[in-house]
Order: sequence, then structure tokens, then C-alpha cells
Amino acid sequence: MRNLLFTITYDGTNYHGWQIQENALTVQEVFQNAFKKVTGDRGDMKACSRTDTGVHAREFCVSVKTESKIVTERFPAAMNHWLPEDVAVKGCKEAPLDFHARYSCKGKEYSYEIWNNPVREPFLRGRALHYWYPIDEVRLKAAAGYYVGAHDFTSFCTLDKRERGDMVRRVTKAWVERRGDMVLFTVAADGFLYNMVRIMAGTLLRVQEGRLLPEDIPGIIEARDRAKAGPTAPACGLYLNRVFY
Amino acid sequence: MRNLLFTITYDGTNYHGWQIQENALTVQEVFQNAFKKVTGDRGDMKACSRTDTGVHAREFCVSVKTESKIVTERFPAAMNHWLPEDVAVKGCKEAPLDFHARYSCKGKEYSYEIWNNPVREPFLRGRALHYWYPIDEVRLKAAAGYYVGAHDFTSFCTLDKRERGDMVRRVTKAWVERRGDMVLFTVAADGFLYNMVRIMAGTLLRVQEGRLLPEDIPGIIEARDRAKAGPTAPACGLYLNRVFY
Repeated sequence: MRNLLFTITYDGTNYHGWQIQENALTVQEVFQNAFKKVTGDRGDMKACSRTDTGVHAREFCVSVKTESKIVTERFPAAMNHWLPEDVAVKGCKEAPLDFHARYSCKGKEYSYEIWNNPVREPFLRGRALHYWYPIDEVRLKAAAGYYVGAHDFTSFCTLDKRERGDMVRRVTKAWVERRGDMVLFTVAADGFLYNMVRIMAGTLLRVQEGRLLPEDIPGIIEARDRAKAGPTAPACGLYLNRVFY
Repeated sequence: MRNLLFTITYDGTNYHGWQIQENALTVQEVFQNAFKKVTGDRGDMKACSRTDTGVHAREFCVSVKTESKIVTERFPAAMNHWLPEDVAVKGCKEAPLDFHARYSCKGKEYSYEIWNNPVREPFLRGRALHYWYPIDEVRLKAAAGYYVGAHDFTSFCTLDKRERGDMVRRVTKAWVERRGDMVLFTVAADGFLYNMVRIMAGTLLRVQEGRLLPEDIPGIIEARDRAKAGPTAPACGLYLNRVFY
């Protein structure tokens, strides 16, 4: 028995997130099918997180326990042969048997990406939020700074049955920068609540609109009330960038 | 009567090039339909060039003679409302009545873009050639340098009924650079023959493979024989970047 740690990347546009489900195509389904083609085995598969429909991953980790004898280094090319073009295995290495892609994860980094130009960018359709009016990235950066620290992020969580228990997450980085017509909000934390980054991004856009001040963020966190934060920004702008172990 | 000069951009993946044709979707068709929605008029439309199926444009110019009274500055937003997401109008200005997007064109710049990594990049599917083995961009740049100048480019032209007459084109720039895992071949000229950039790119890849030397390029040009040059590289890597008037 080996425990293989796969690093993959995918364009989430055509998928209903990672986690396998009935009646909808997910990344897990195509990954599992490829794994079965390669090894003849379904594998016992653990992923670093679920992602939502339309969310992208530049780095996403999956650990798979398997009896397969295939040489570890040969997995990327073999898997990529069977995977569709919008999913790719970047690497595969052996992990300890007690390693679990989700529970062993120490943190993640996401970015929320905005195309900020009156004219849409055809090459970014489904891959960035299109925002017409000029964004003041300095103002948004000031607002994002208030996210840093260990806070109860109830205000930044879509309430559903999945989220119960400890709502405190430690945000280690939260910044906003402009690269030409792109505005990037990057956030790293030891963990994320459901829709947390998208609500953080939606709240920054409320700051952009002038409906909130950067200094309002601490009060919104304090309130532990989803209604105080901004809307959930669209999935298309969200990228899982890195997973820390 | 006004002559409007539109600057547009499009992801060519879903189109059979610019020029309207029966039984296949083209960029001209969706552009013409949008123009008709906006003005009620088909317009007399001239484009800077045809592009092939799957070729992309960061800047493509169309001049349209029209009796429409709509204010020039309002065209981009109005057109973008009706165009599909993979095509966008970036600008519109009035041109002299004798201006013709094709015949008034003084030159164009294309780039041929290669993703150079053993693992494919899901976000570049249909948008770059995937090349597995490490490319020596210095060697390719040396080869590309030989393209510069006024030459008869018969060896770099797909023979078809469209190409007759003068086969001399003046290449003003031809260089290769690496940006991380991307290798870009950029070429500017006063005009291009059919498939000229893709054959130039395919010939550079022959140099990469060691089947040709950089110093072989002048002889290939000299031969005026399509069979001496490399294959036509796939359309997905080709971008029309700029049009000069």
C-alpha cells in the first residue's frame, strides 16, 4: 500500500467543483476515471478541499491510497493521457500512509481576480470577474488589511449544514494589487469557511462602490452576521493558488 | 455616410476565422449581426485580414461604411452588448471615407505562442502550442533573425488560389523570447502570405529538433520552395497582435 500525493491544476469552468456528485460533471469524477484507467483501481481518494462550480485551481492536492505497483514518477504522464484537456496532473510523490490531503493541510492561498476595464476581455471569460469602473486598489488594499489575523469569520461564511463548530480562521496574508488592467486580491489562511474568499471579495467591491469604508471591516467581522458583509462574488474570479503542508 | 474604424479582439477557438462563409460560424458573422442590431443596417465592411480557424486576435481592425447616425463613441458598448463573450469591440473612431482596413494597412504584428513544459496548461488549451521538450530560445532567436528583411517568402506560403503575384514581404522584426514557461515568436511585416507565420513557426521548431540549423534559413528562403520549410504549426498558438496604419 502506498499513499500518493498528486498536485493537479484545472480550469473549473466546465465542472461542478471537485467533489463527485450525481447528475453533474466534477473534477473528482474525471480524476477517478483516469486513475482507474491507469491502475485498474479506484483508489481511496482524499482532496485538500471541495471547490465550487466554476472555481479554478492552479494547485490542488489529492492523496490516494493504492495497491498499484506503477512507478510514482510515471503517474503524471499516464494520468494526463486520460484526463481531459482542462485538468492536468503537475506532480506525484509518495506521502506517509497517515498523510491526508485535507486534514494534513496547514493552509491555503487563494486569489480573486478582476478584469478592470470598460471592455470585457474575451481571453478571460469565465476566468475573471469583469468590473467596468476604475478600481482604487490602494483603498481596497487598506480594507483587505483588516482581514489579517485570527478572527471568527461567521460574517464571511455562507450558512449551510456543512459549517458547524469553530468559525475562527487565522488569515496570514490579505492584499490587493494591480497588474495592468487586472486587480488581484490574494488571501492566505490556515483554513477557509464556505464561500469565505468570495464574500471577502464581494465586501471589497462594496468598499469600491463607496457603500462601505475600509475601517468598517473590523465591525463586520465583530458582528458575526452574514448580512453585514457584502455579496458572494461570482465563482469565475476565484483560484486556489497554493496548498501548504 | 461615415467610415467607422473598429478595433476588436477575439478568442478564435470557436470560429472558422474572420471571413463569413456558409455552414460555419465566423467572427464576421457575429460582428455583422451585432452591427445590424445596433444600427439596423448591414454596413459595408472591410477587415484588415482573414484569419484562419482557431487563430486569435488581440487587435483586429474592421472599417464599416454606414449611414447610421449613432455617436461614434457609443459604438463599443452597444456592439459589446450584442456580441458573444469571446469577441469584444475595444474602440471605434471615424476614418476618412477612402480608408480601407485592408488596403490602407501598412503592416501587422503577429505572435506565435508556445507552452514549453512537459505538463500541459489547462488555462492555455486552444491558446498556445504545447511543446514538451525544453526549447533553446537563443538558438531559435538566431534562426528567426534570418527572416528579417525584404524576401520572396514563397517557401513560407501555403499554395492556394488566393496567393498570386508578388510574394515579396518586408519583415521588420522577428524575434524569440522566453517568459517563464512560455516561448514567444513575434514577427512584424508590411504584409503576410497565407500561413506565413505558422510556417515560420513550424520551421523554427525544426531548428529546435536539430533537423535544421539556424544558418539554413537563408537557403530555405532562397529556394522559393514550400517543401524546404518546416510544417505549418497549429493555429491555436497564433495571435494577431497589432495592425499598423
